[in-house]
Amino acid sequence: MLKSSYHQHPFVLRKYQKWPWLDSIFGRWHDVIAETKPAKAMAIKPHSKHEKQLVTGRGRVAVPPPRRVAIVAVPPVRTLDVFGPAEVFADANHLNRGEPAYDVQVVSATENRTVTSYLGVPLVADRTYHEMRQPVDTLLVAGGEGAQQMRLSPKLLEWLRRQSGKARRYGSVCTGALVLAEAGLLDGRRVTTHWNWCQELQQKHPKVKVDPRPIYIRDKNLFTSAGVTAGIDLSLALVEDDLGGALALQVAQMMVVFLRRPGGQSQFSATLMAQARGRRSLRDLLAWVADNLQSKFSISTLARRAAMSPRNLPAYSERKSAKLPRGISRPCG
Amino acid sequence: MLKSSYHQHPFVLRKYQKWPWLDSIFGRWHDVIAETKPAKAMAIKPHSKHEKQLVTGRGRVAVPPPRRVAIVAVPPVRTLDVFGPAEVFADANHLNRGEPAYDVQVVSATENRTVTSYLGVPLVADRTYHEMRQPVDTLLVAGGEGAQQMRLSPKLLEWLRRQSGKARRYGSVCTGALVLAEAGLLDGRRVTTHWNWCQELQQKHPKVKVDPRPIYIRDKNLFTSAGVTAGIDLSLALVEDDLGGALALQVAQMMVVFLRRPGGQSQFSATLMAQARGRRSLRDLLAWVADNLQSKFSISTLARRAAMSPRNLPAYSERKSAKLPRGISRPCG
Repeated sequence: MLKSSYHQHPFVLRKYQKWPWLDSIFGRWHDVIAETKPAKAMAIKPHSKHEKQLVTGRGRVAVPPPRRVAIVAVPPVRTLDVFGPAEVFADANHLNRGEPAYDVQVVSATENRTVTSYLGVPLVADRTYHEMRQPVDTLLVAGGEGAQQMRLSPKLLEWLRRQSGKARRYGSVCTGALVLAEAGLLDGRRVTTHWNWCQELQQKHPKVKVDPRPIYIRDKNLFTSAGVTAGIDLSLALVEDDLGGALALQVAQMMVVFLRRPGGQSQFSATLMAQARGRRSLRDLLAWVADNLQSKFSISTLARRAAMSPRNLPAYSERKSAKLPRGISRPCG
Repeated sequence: MLKSSYHQHPFVLRKYQKWPWLDSIFGRWHDVIAETKPAKAMAIKPHSKHEKQLVTGRGRVAVPPPRRVAIVAVPPVRTLDVFGPAEVFADANHLNRGEPAYDVQVVSATENRTVTSYLGVPLVADRTYHEMRQPVDTLLVAGGEGAQQMRLSPKLLEWLRRQSGKARRYGSVCTGALVLAEAGLLDGRRVTTHWNWCQELQQKHPKVKVDPRPIYIRDKNLFTSAGVTAGIDLSLALVEDDLGGALALQVAQMMVVFLRRPGGQSQFSATLMAQARGRRSLRDLLAWVADNLQSKFSISTLARRAAMSPRNLPAYSERKSAKLPRGISRPCG
């Protein structure tokens, strides 16, 4: 079961004597990771013809790892829009076997390194955009509840145009898309933003092709994502592009993420809505089902989990519209 | 379909003319929320007999809203451990129709308001623990990659004991549990922490009953959670306790959360592990299935989504162990 390098694996910091089943979980993880194709030694994969020219223009050697990731905080910033992506890249560094892959920089969108957050506590950036003159590999603009109301300085917009033109890829988390749009960087591109601000983005910038559904969208070298937690999904996808699926998986497990949402996943989670109906035990049952798709369900097992009688469960779930999956309410063979 | 108060709902900041289907989604959400039983006007529900005495001791009137939530940042703090919970409580304030329910305070565990984070950028707390003399309603200790190595000052431990003794509830996110254990606050209690530090917690503190499985555990008025994103699940549960399921649901949707994990959910997501196998399209298919449990699946629909032929998909998924849900590989009726 256990492979030779298993106990040197970053996941296995010590032997789990008390919980032998934990050892077996790590063993299974290790098998999965060992099977996954490793990334091609930090090669920068161009995403498109357009981008290939861009990358080649600067020369591949000119951007050795660690790659500079700039996360631009526009006040009053939503802290998770900044720190969700930042922690994904930082964990990727940590898990990349002592070879930092990213140089993560939090960049203030004002002339001051201290950025107000909508929580009240300020956030201290590594530098202001003025001080950030070096080329950037990945530029992400983080938004917040107020990014769309802010009067953005023409200098910042000019800096964004210059940096995104040179970067391998750029994009936004949440209402950061409104800032990129203000800089004219989204015209004619397919983008998304937090569902609550899609209409505003579309009305202010009619040339932008806004799609309010997906968790994130990639249009050539432009990546835009929905709000808050979606920034984590987007960043995991960027890490996978750079360092391969195995590392992205380890980062996701370190962050105790439930599942990796693909770009096409809807911002309007049907599972979350189904969980809103009916009693708490039924909601918890739905979460359990979503994590145990491969189990063989029987109405009696499920009813026991929901602390209901096997006769009541299907009827109750029908009545509350928190319908059980089809395979469950009418079990197969 | 649309109810009278629907357009005054905080979700519906404007009319979605361009995407009429968005209007219908909000309408459905509104129906769900309207159906959900409202919370009993901010009443502090005691969780147990023990706690009832505690609450009654201070008197119900003595803790009017906003309730003080103190999130203690122990350096080098993991930013998401602090800001995940902080944003949940802040969003609850924002969505509670102009009546702030919480007074969220980020508290430094050192004598300095500036707390180092493991990302490098510092975090500025509202106050240090010295300056936090007021009673607290909810005390949460946020951890980080270094919390377990830090030499904690006896004064901080004494402060934690004093504050948690008076608080209605207290707990930890991630390795914050190691700090609470150091203060002797977990002896004899059932707790969890990030899977990577469970063994360490158990070895250092043999009296603590560590369970490395759950996302979070509630033991009377003590709440401990797994790492990073699990802090969001825990905080949503606390908001639900205080303000009801409808508001917790709105917060989850505002944060674009995929599903609300109950405490009993495993830290080791089977769905995440299944996503690690096989090609990307199959991984994305699994995420889609988890969000569409109520759809009627056919092999041909699924194969089209995974860009595979209907004949290859089941065989491929068997071979890669990324097995499709049973109801799918052998469809019913």
